[in-house]
Amino acid sequence: MNHFENVSVIGFDADDTLWVNETYFREVEDKFAKILEDYEVNDRAIQELFKVEIRNLKKYGYGIKGFVLSMIECALDLSNHTLPQTSISEIINLGKEMIEYPIELLPDVVDVISRLKGEYRLIVVTKGDLLDQERKLQRSKISHYFHHVEIVHEKEEANYSKLLRQQDIDPKEFLMVGNSLKSDVLPVVGIGAQAVHIPYHTTWQHEEAEPQSHENADYLTLSTIADLPGYLLTD
Amino acid sequence: MNHFENVSVIGFDADDTLWVNETYFREVEDKFAKILEDYEVNDRAIQELFKVEIRNLKKYGYGIKGFVLSMIECALDLSNHTLPQTSISEIINLGKEMIEYPIELLPDVVDVISRLKGEYRLIVVTKGDLLDQERKLQRSKISHYFHHVEIVHEKEEANYSKLLRQQDIDPKEFLMVGNSLKSDVLPVVGIGAQAVHIPYHTTWQHEEAEPQSHENADYLTLSTIADLPGYLLTD
Repeated sequence: MNHFENVSVIGFDADDTLWVNETYFREVEDKFAKILEDYEVNDRAIQELFKVEIRNLKKYGYGIKGFVLSMIECALDLSNHTLPQTSISEIINLGKEMIEYPIELLPDVVDVISRLKGEYRLIVVTKGDLLDQERKLQRSKISHYFHHVEIVHEKEEANYSKLLRQQDIDPKEFLMVGNSLKSDVLPVVGIGAQAVHIPYHTTWQHEEAEPQSHENADYLTLSTIADLPGYLLTD
Repeated sequence: MNHFENVSVIGFDADDTLWVNETYFREVEDKFAKILEDYEVNDRAIQELFKVEIRNLKKYGYGIKGFVLSMIECALDLSNHTLPQTSISEIINLGKEMIEYPIELLPDVVDVISRLKGEYRLIVVTKGDLLDQERKLQRSKISHYFHHVEIVHEKEEANYSKLLRQQDIDPKEFLMVGNSLKSDVLPVVGIGAQAVHIPYHTTWQHEEAEPQSHENADYLTLSTIADLPGYLLTD
């Protein structure tokens, strides 16, 4: 049964939809809290870091480099500039390790995109740091499944509209698949396209949409990407 | 007289071709050297920073955030981790100020692109950090002159080929204009398109091409962008 009859192009979010991402940030946050354990209780360090990240988001955007700069700033703040200088080097090295992390594809991703590829034009729509995202896509070894990769600095309605215009895609024929209601579902539904939400077990606080904001949005929620072909392929 | 008869699309580099960029990095490097003056003589600090930047380039890419992370790393190294923690905050703040710098267009840019716009399809091809570059373009108030803006993480032949393919541009009809032989001229000539080199008074060491590398390349060098229309418009 095809629930999406008019759809001919499927956009996939990348981080936490195609591969693991948020988990790594959470692990590094725990290490960050450990570096600061003489100054702060665990939870407060991570909460303060979140505040610094949000304050810096307009300047730094998403991605590992801005995350590292915010960790350094937060560590200096929370320790009143008494943190040992070697701990700053440790934080820089945490970032460099993150950049080199291998890509861990989520279960069933390769099977699903290889089945859909024959019937649909597949694209990736991901936000974040250009180099981070290109590197991840290259390491993922699945970039050949995609007709186009779009890396944007924010996923709002205007960015989706621009992308569809540039790629000559009618909103009615576009379906977006992703783990973030705020970035992958609501703005897509907002421009008249369709969306499938596949929640990931870990969501960054900043990506959590206000509950009232999606009262009027229609979208399908799936527990796993493995269920996606059932809604898109007829046999 | 039109030296570029088949050209229909002109690509412009942005940093140091449309607006001032390198000058700001040099100014911040001087401030960085001053922060380190108790540890190192001026010149050595800047040379060491360059080495750290190049070592980190594959991880961080171009742009302000990577530059700031390299400054912190270099300052910790050169001071043997004795640099006051407040100096780290100073370096972070230098980066935040850079992000907020206003855009200073180079002389004659607006006049030139507004004259060329009627006759040619104009695009921007710039490398660096996605957010930095989008922000600069928005602040420049000249983005409406351009049909397309492409932000790449590196300007090599493969990146230009991919861009021309995606934009449906034949290399024979493409002319690239920029200040860097290494990024704007040689790879463009290498894929069979044409290029105009407009040197800027300050070039980052990393952008300086080896002299022997352009022995066999044909391209036009202009002292100022104001001379460009004379080669492209017939009246």
